[in-house]
Amino acid sequence: MSEPTGDIGLIGLAVMGQNLILNMNDKGFTVVAYNRTTSKVDYFLANEAKGTKIQGAHSVQELCAKLKRPRKIILLVKAGAAVDQFIEQLLPYLEPGDIVIDGGNSHYPDSIRRTQELEAKGLLFVGSGVSGGEEGARYGPSLMPGGSEAAWPHIKEIFQKTAAQAYGEPCCDWVGQTGAGHYVKMVHNGIEYGDMQLIAEAYDILKRGLDLHEDEIADIFDRWNKGVLDSFLIEITSQILRFKDDDGEPIVTKILDQAGQKGTGKWTAINALDTGVPVTLIGEAVFARCLSSIKAERTRASKVLAAPKKEPFRGDKKQFIDDLEQALYASKIMSYTQGFMLMRETAKEQGWNLNYAGIARMWRGGCIIKSVFLKDITEAFTNTPELESLLFHSFFKDAITKAQPGWRRVIAQAVLWGIPTPAFSTALAFFDGYRSEIVPANLIQGQRDFFGAHTFRVLPGKENARLKAGEDIHINWTGRGGNVSASTYSA
Amino acid sequence: MSEPTGDIGLIGLAVMGQNLILNMNDKGFTVVAYNRTTSKVDYFLANEAKGTKIQGAHSVQELCAKLKRPRKIILLVKAGAAVDQFIEQLLPYLEPGDIVIDGGNSHYPDSIRRTQELEAKGLLFVGSGVSGGEEGARYGPSLMPGGSEAAWPHIKEIFQKTAAQAYGEPCCDWVGQTGAGHYVKMVHNGIEYGDMQLIAEAYDILKRGLDLHEDEIADIFDRWNKGVLDSFLIEITSQILRFKDDDGEPIVTKILDQAGQKGTGKWTAINALDTGVPVTLIGEAVFARCLSSIKAERTRASKVLAAPKKEPFRGDKKQFIDDLEQALYASKIMSYTQGFMLMRETAKEQGWNLNYAGIARMWRGGCIIKSVFLKDITEAFTNTPELESLLFHSFFKDAITKAQPGWRRVIAQAVLWGIPTPAFSTALAFFDGYRSEIVPANLIQGQRDFFGAHTFRVLPGKENARLKAGEDIHINWTGRGGNVSASTYSA
Repeated sequence: MSEPTGDIGLIGLAVMGQNLILNMNDKGFTVVAYNRTTSKVDYFLANEAKGTKIQGAHSVQELCAKLKRPRKIILLVKAGAAVDQFIEQLLPYLEPGDIVIDGGNSHYPDSIRRTQELEAKGLLFVGSGVSGGEEGARYGPSLMPGGSEAAWPHIKEIFQKTAAQAYGEPCCDWVGQTGAGHYVKMVHNGIEYGDMQLIAEAYDILKRGLDLHEDEIADIFDRWNKGVLDSFLIEITSQILRFKDDDGEPIVTKILDQAGQKGTGKWTAINALDTGVPVTLIGEAVFARCLSSIKAERTRASKVLAAPKKEPFRGDKKQFIDDLEQALYASKIMSYTQGFMLMRETAKEQGWNLNYAGIARMWRGGCIIKSVFLKDITEAFTNTPELESLLFHSFFKDAITKAQPGWRRVIAQAVLWGIPTPAFSTALAFFDGYRSEIVPANLIQGQRDFFGAHTFRVLPGKENARLKAGEDIHINWTGRGGNVSASTYSA
Repeated sequence: MSEPTGDIGLIGLAVMGQNLILNMNDKGFTVVAYNRTTSKVDYFLANEAKGTKIQGAHSVQELCAKLKRPRKIILLVKAGAAVDQFIEQLLPYLEPGDIVIDGGNSHYPDSIRRTQELEAKGLLFVGSGVSGGEEGARYGPSLMPGGSEAAWPHIKEIFQKTAAQAYGEPCCDWVGQTGAGHYVKMVHNGIEYGDMQLIAEAYDILKRGLDLHEDEIADIFDRWNKGVLDSFLIEITSQILRFKDDDGEPIVTKILDQAGQKGTGKWTAINALDTGVPVTLIGEAVFARCLSSIKAERTRASKVLAAPKKEPFRGDKKQFIDDLEQALYASKIMSYTQGFMLMRETAKEQGWNLNYAGIARMWRGGCIIKSVFLKDITEAFTNTPELESLLFHSFFKDAITKAQPGWRRVIAQAVLWGIPTPAFSTALAFFDGYRSEIVPANLIQGQRDFFGAHTFRVLPGKENARLKAGEDIHINWTGRGGNVSASTYSA
């Protein structure tokens, strides 16, 4: 058998896999393609891959035999058991130092586990987020690799050349240890849920509040796409709104209003709850999809629950639309602030060194959430790597100061109109809570101590003989009952 | 050895356990008390239990020997491994038909597992929620037993007599199979988080918005406690607000504003995400506690992030306070609507027959969320056992219609003031989404199909040759790319 010439192998010839292979081929790499149903390999070689350097393999053994060492093999298969099964199949044909890369939508705890398992066998594992959909895979995705650090020098060139380029830099860098790549991809997806929900709320306000037609709304999105909101999602929203059915009606008005989900937004929200970080915007975005899905119940409810009386809008429409742009922008700043807070806390828990500027850079292009905004975040973290919160950076602080009045006016108006703005509202509630030195949790602690003897601490500056700093204080609120603190009851 | 005379045994002599024993003794039952540290047994018998029929045991063997058959043993120990360890210790001394009751704060999947494990051994298991804190345990808690149905006739009398009595009925009934008792207790606790957060937001608005003193606010809560909000939490809030430190200052103003949590609220929110039910109010309540806990970061943020200019309130204060009462009431209706939606969905998943009227009845008295409101919910489900949603019942529909204008005015005002109302706001957003036949999820589906070929369905009534009912439709939005639907990429 001749010397192997394959730079990298890829398993899984669904759309994403095919496109990623064609992309890597375009960038000058020799890719070996394999698929469980091997007829797909032949079809691919005879069609999309015709006239390229792409090689085919009809077994994992052949795949491994065709790869230069250390072997690099990307799995683009269904997350879950299939990944483990392919790893299992590959093992007999791999040698120490070979690199298995999972480019699917795996949950990050699985990538943590797989890193440990493969490293124990002398192999290297990379769990890489791949974002950008079909188009991204074909012409330049955002790639977020993490796992065995020793793998990075071997895959860096392929990954960074295959990735999208934005502002002269690749949308790919090393994310961090074990499951960090898939973790960051998960947060990316959660943020994507938030961005989409915010856009949907803006659309709803323009449509139901200002009674605008889809074409007029598309014009507004086009204008926004030239300013601070400049992004892929705003751009495609305008294209979607303009897309007509054969009868000339905007096709979006004929799409069933039940949003699907595949779990990554939910995972992010659960991670936030488990980590204790208030990632409220993603939470609301996921719940908004849940609410959309009970269409039949909503339809029945719409017949019996009264809406507020709709008053025609008497204000300055142009001003209101500018306010809405600021509301969307400010809410987006909150969402990303929350997302970076979550990554910071999880990194602490997992012992990962996450490069926040690098993460923002990876998201700047190639992926669904790519935007000018992420360029600004990249700059903020590049200038101040230890930045505690995006909101502490002068750029975003100033942006919020400017956005605040319009943001508040939009929400107040939507509330009176009866147009639901769960994401706008929670973003503002987060901001107002975050900038409050005192929140009313003192009352909650008083209640918990009253009914469950859960104790509380004293507010700094208010200490005295009864309320001592650093002590768990219980008060006998009623004069009855004991002075014993709770030991088993929880609430 | 003489014939055993113990009606029921209890393991775990922390405050809750001691109080529950004293309560059962008062109701005429002979209780046998055991604790791992047996000196606690002796102390209890010589002090709190002196002069009662309460018996002590110094080993699980002695405990079992002192109990009439079928034995009934309540564990009130720390949730988790301790429960399994005590069950393990008890097993050698139990006989078929004996009943092990876990009255701790176990997570319901553990109760599902324990029911199965003990039933496989011929024993019966009951996982029972116990709510009401120290006071409830002593004088009448809310008890929510579920698990092995065959156990119910044996424990019914003890449980229903020990429980609180409200409106002439016990706050205890059989909840359902396997983990249903602890599940319903978990949702109870989640709802409790929501109720507490709503009260905290009302307090914040009265304090920071209307600049009222704690005594004035207590007066308002006292008034509310005579109306639709009449409840234990409103009552104790007033008492907490009036409680003065030695210098005459309300002690609540000296309590550190960092709310603790023990996980049950978080479990409920995670269950909601997993089940796909938009239980947004509990989610926001949990996240509000998370936000409260980063006190140092909030304090730094408060120095750099500008608040909106505070305008003195120029409206009718009395009207605004009445509006606030309605806002709190309407938000509470949304929270309970969401909670019952969640129970309904989980019951479907688990195959439980939950008695919703019974659940509301159990919560009507004895527990932290006891209220007049729960009497109304009890009546709604008693009259209409198949009620799809609380909001479809005329009582709550009318209540919401009445509350709407004030509810919206309060949120709009808080938004302009810069006072965070995450729970009020999410409640309203849920209501406005729930009563919307069309929500903007059509745009989200358009976006998902645009970037990920996720497909969509057609809105009923808009079908045509291109948009067929029941089909997963993909549109080639850009004219580029393929017509292949996504098979591996998720977002």
